[in-house]
Amino acid sequence: MIKEITIIGSGNIATQLGIALHKANFIIKQIISRNPITGKVLAQELQSQFVNSLSMIQEADLIIIATNDDSIEKVSNEIPDYPTVHTSGNTNLKALNKQNKYGVIYPVQSLHKDDDIDFKKIPICIEANSMKFKEEIIKVISKISSSIFCLNSNERKYIHLSAVIASNFSNHLYAIAKEILDKKKLNFNILKPLIIATASKIELNDPLTNQTGPAKRKDTKTINEHLKIIDNKNYKKIYKLISNNIIENHGN
Amino acid sequence: MIKEITIIGSGNIATQLGIALHKANFIIKQIISRNPITGKVLAQELQSQFVNSLSMIQEADLIIIATNDDSIEKVSNEIPDYPTVHTSGNTNLKALNKQNKYGVIYPVQSLHKDDDIDFKKIPICIEANSMKFKEEIIKVISKISSSIFCLNSNERKYIHLSAVIASNFSNHLYAIAKEILDKKKLNFNILKPLIIATASKIELNDPLTNQTGPAKRKDTKTINEHLKIIDNKNYKKIYKLISNNIIENHGN
Repeated sequence: MIKEITIIGSGNIATQLGIALHKANFIIKQIISRNPITGKVLAQELQSQFVNSLSMIQEADLIIIATNDDSIEKVSNEIPDYPTVHTSGNTNLKALNKQNKYGVIYPVQSLHKDDDIDFKKIPICIEANSMKFKEEIIKVISKISSSIFCLNSNERKYIHLSAVIASNFSNHLYAIAKEILDKKKLNFNILKPLIIATASKIELNDPLTNQTGPAKRKDTKTINEHLKIIDNKNYKKIYKLISNNIIENHGN
Repeated sequence: MIKEITIIGSGNIATQLGIALHKANFIIKQIISRNPITGKVLAQELQSQFVNSLSMIQEADLIIIATNDDSIEKVSNEIPDYPTVHTSGNTNLKALNKQNKYGVIYPVQSLHKDDDIDFKKIPICIEANSMKFKEEIIKVISKISSSIFCLNSNERKYIHLSAVIASNFSNHLYAIAKEILDKKKLNFNILKPLIIATASKIELNDPLTNQTGPAKRKDTKTINEHLKIIDNKNYKKIYKLISNNIIENHGN
C-alpha cells in the first residue's frame, strides 16, 4: 500500500498535487527540486524534506515526476527502481520503462501554484504498466479526486490536444478580445458574464448546439464589418479562419 | 415615463427582454411578429396582444425592435413616430433616425429563448439620440439590470466584435475539441471542469497572465506532435495560427 510519496519538481503540478496528497494524509517524504527557493517553500508546506539533487533520493512507495515534459525520461533514468509515475498529458507511459512499476497521473486542469484548488472535481487520467500497479495508483488518487479515467497513452494525447484547443486557445481569444477593448479604452468587464455563461453552457448542451453569432447565422455583412475594424493582421486571419470554419460546420 | 412597451420580434432577445420587462412590471402592450407561433406563445406569456403586421401597431411609450439586424432600418421606416430602440450590437444608432426619439439597448449576452436568465448581471449597452431619452431608457433598464454602460455606436461595434471573438469563437473551439474526442470515443466530460475553470479565471487575472499551455512555453515539440495527430486541415490551420500568435504575444 502506498503511504510515502516523493515528489520531483516544485512547480505548479508538484505544488497542487503535493498539497492535495498531504491533505489526504499521505506522507510526502521528499521534495526534490533544482530550484531551492520553490523547493524549500513546498517542502515546508508539506512537512517534507527538501533535497536539491536526484542523487539524494530515498526509497518511497511512490515517486511522482512532476517536472517539465522534456526532463521526465532523463529523471527516470537517474533514479533507482522505485514505483514511479509522471504527470504529463503528452508524454508516453514508456518514458518511464526503466522502472519495474511505472504509470501516469495526469490531472486535466490548468493548475497554478497559488490557486485554491478543489481537487475532488478535477478529472485525473491514470495509466500503469500493470493492472496491479494501476489499482495501487487508483487507491491513492481516489483519495483526492472523484473523477478518475483510465486511459492509455494514445488516448491521453488526444485529451491533451483537445484541452489545449478548448482551454489554452480560448484563453488566448479572451486576451485578444481584451486587447481590442483596451485599445478603445473599453472595459473588459462588459464581456466577463458572457464569457463565463458561454463556458457554463457546455453543461447544458453540446457546444455545436450552443453556437451563436454572425458566422453561425452566415451573416457575411457583420463578418465583413468586423474584419474592417480589426487592425492586427493575425487577429484578422484568426477571425476569418474561425468564422469560415463555423460557416462550414453549420452548413447544409 | 415609460410604462407601456411594444416588442417587435419573437426570437431570443425579444423573448428574454420581454420576460425581464414583464417581471419588472412594465406592460407589454403588443408583440408584433411575422411568426404567429412564437409570437402568440410570447404574447400569452407576457399577457400581451399578438399582432402579425406592423400596420397594426398601436401607440406605446417605447417600441423595441428585436428583429435580426438586417430588418431594423426597414422596420423603423414602417412604424409611426413613437420612441424606438433596437437591440443590436453591430447596428448604428442612426438606423432609427426616422424617429424623433431613438436609441439602443444591447444586452451583451448570448440569449437563448429557453434559458433561465438572471438579467440583473447582464451588461447592457445603452445609447440614445438625446440625453433626455437616454435617461428615460436608463430608468427602464435599471429595473432589469444593474450593469449599464453608456456607449456610442462605434464603441458598441467593438464590444460586439470582441464578444464574437471571446464567446462565439471560444464555443467553436469547444466544439472542435469535442469532435476530436468523439472520434476517439473519449468523453467530453473530461474537459468540462477545465473549460469552466479557464473561463472563470478571467475574474482573477488578466487573460494574458492566465495563459498556459505548450505555445506559452514555446514547447515546439508538443506543438508538432499535436499537429501530427490533427486530421482536419482547417483545425490544423487554426491550431498553428493560434499557437504562433500565443508564441508571438508571449515573446521577448
